[in-house]
Amino acid sequence: MVNIRLLTSILLVLIALQSHHAWSQTYGLALHGGAGYMTPESLGPEKSKAYKDALQIALEIGYSTLKKGESSETAIINVISFLEDNELFNSGRGSVLNAEGQVEMDASIMLGKDLSAGAVAGVTTTKHPIKAAALVMNESKHVMMAGDGAEKFSKQNKLEMEEPSYFITDEKRESLKKMQERNSQELDKDQYKGGKGPSDVLNSKFGTVGVVALDKDGNLASGTSTGGMSNKMYNRIGDSPVIGAGTYADNATCAVSCTGHGEYFIRLAVAHEVSALMKHREWDVDKAASHVIHVELENLGGKGGLIALDRRGNVSAPFNTPGMFRGWKLSDGREEVKMFKD
Amino acid sequence: MVNIRLLTSILLVLIALQSHHAWSQTYGLALHGGAGYMTPESLGPEKSKAYKDALQIALEIGYSTLKKGESSETAIINVISFLEDNELFNSGRGSVLNAEGQVEMDASIMLGKDLSAGAVAGVTTTKHPIKAAALVMNESKHVMMAGDGAEKFSKQNKLEMEEPSYFITDEKRESLKKMQERNSQELDKDQYKGGKGPSDVLNSKFGTVGVVALDKDGNLASGTSTGGMSNKMYNRIGDSPVIGAGTYADNATCAVSCTGHGEYFIRLAVAHEVSALMKHREWDVDKAASHVIHVELENLGGKGGLIALDRRGNVSAPFNTPGMFRGWKLSDGREEVKMFKD
Repeated sequence: MVNIRLLTSILLVLIALQSHHAWSQTYGLALHGGAGYMTPESLGPEKSKAYKDALQIALEIGYSTLKKGESSETAIINVISFLEDNELFNSGRGSVLNAEGQVEMDASIMLGKDLSAGAVAGVTTTKHPIKAAALVMNESKHVMMAGDGAEKFSKQNKLEMEEPSYFITDEKRESLKKMQERNSQELDKDQYKGGKGPSDVLNSKFGTVGVVALDKDGNLASGTSTGGMSNKMYNRIGDSPVIGAGTYADNATCAVSCTGHGEYFIRLAVAHEVSALMKHREWDVDKAASHVIHVELENLGGKGGLIALDRRGNVSAPFNTPGMFRGWKLSDGREEVKMFKD
Repeated sequence: MVNIRLLTSILLVLIALQSHHAWSQTYGLALHGGAGYMTPESLGPEKSKAYKDALQIALEIGYSTLKKGESSETAIINVISFLEDNELFNSGRGSVLNAEGQVEMDASIMLGKDLSAGAVAGVTTTKHPIKAAALVMNESKHVMMAGDGAEKFSKQNKLEMEEPSYFITDEKRESLKKMQERNSQELDKDQYKGGKGPSDVLNSKFGTVGVVALDKDGNLASGTSTGGMSNKMYNRIGDSPVIGAGTYADNATCAVSCTGHGEYFIRLAVAHEVSALMKHREWDVDKAASHVIHVELENLGGKGGLIALDRRGNVSAPFNTPGMFRGWKLSDGREEVKMFKD
């Protein structure tokens, strides 16, 4: 009899542990607000605080969405819409201007559970490009749509639209003017390394916002939204709307969102490469993500960073620029907001 | 003395073999003219011959370019320009029409020696979209450009331009009309498997043309050009101009060009995945390419195929549709033109 009692107890403990395991799926998110050449000195205390506060609010928006049991897709859309509205970040309102003084925005989203994906490139009047990307994913037979076609589709589906002027801020207009006076593209900043150079260059970012999320069902998703590169040619498409380059998600591996000199990210298929290293070499997310940024991207001469999140809630956030606005908040209590190297 | 003579002879033979090895870098190319639902019966002898002849001429154009010692990049451009001019193929003149009755073309090119890449999406007046892709690669700081911006850049750089009407053939106009009457997109053809269905459906292809080439210097390159999917939404971007999805090249692995239901190829980053399997699992080109098409693409429910070529001249051309127009010609004498399953 005692033995049966003992066995029953052991069984109950095992069942409880099993259930606990099911309940305790880690959930949470990581986000970035762009990698770049900013340093504590160049950014200054006031602007540093503004970025930190915004990143903190963004994390809370995403975390509370996930805590309620909503999907990683919904968390991505909620957080990125907030960042698109916030003119501190180069996405939605506050996007940088192309060489013709216009805002052209790109965004993409991908779900790890079934590899479904959506992207828009070169939209100019869609208030929240990330919502247009999700619309392409959920309501069309396509993955990627550009320009007028994407906007037409957004309008038909009642997304919020704005005049092109809504997206343009004085700061970005001023920044384009300075850049064109120097007749340089927002690219080769190596000569300014070490904190020397005009403040608008030092603070310039490969601004992009991105979120990777893991929900209570264990589903990963990632999303990226950007105004692209300052002074870019009209109709240039960067890596952000390119599935495999700026964004990738696969429940079997991880969710990734990138920020940086997009041309290099496309050539290396950075987001997909992180996933491929995990899948084919069985590397963990941090080893894979760090290798892609610090070896592959570095060797090709590219600059930027990424955030990656695996299904167990492991976060990696490597970058090879002086700074990257980033943060994460997970249900097991890990929480960080950072802007520069540790 | 005899021994020294013997040793000298052996040494001379070894030197000769070594030099022969240096001279005998295999060069050549493989190409596709689209995967699809065509069968010998649905295509008929006359059209079969027309396709076969065109593929043969295309191979000769590429092979003679490489034989002269020109680069794999030049071979790609020469062959694809020819296919773009040929209205049998869904690229350049003879492209399929989008839902609004217009031709919108996509193309991309990538070089294995330094991972440089260029792509254009949604061009409507550039006679040879592959030349516009090469222009973006060689003359801009960008990798990918869309629509008006890409055309403007092509015009500035004196590429040949045509009126939109030049690209539209009666056959494609008729085909769109039939398709719209059926109110279906050029996609889900599974119901027509086994040779049943209207002839325009049976002969419909995921038309795209693509070339992978290996030159005498051992440099790989790949290029892809397409009119996209019949009845596609205005401004839809498929996989062909997406580096990593429809096109990839890396001297360390292989050159790849894809044809098929582009949305699936983007979600799997098919071209980059072939390269990743070779790099990270050390699989040979045929094992990698076959796995991606017959396992990964098949499992996701996608249809299409690809051609891949490694640095030693090994060719792989897997597809999971009834047919794929394809061929290759290598300096070691291998030569084939095929349209259906073996």
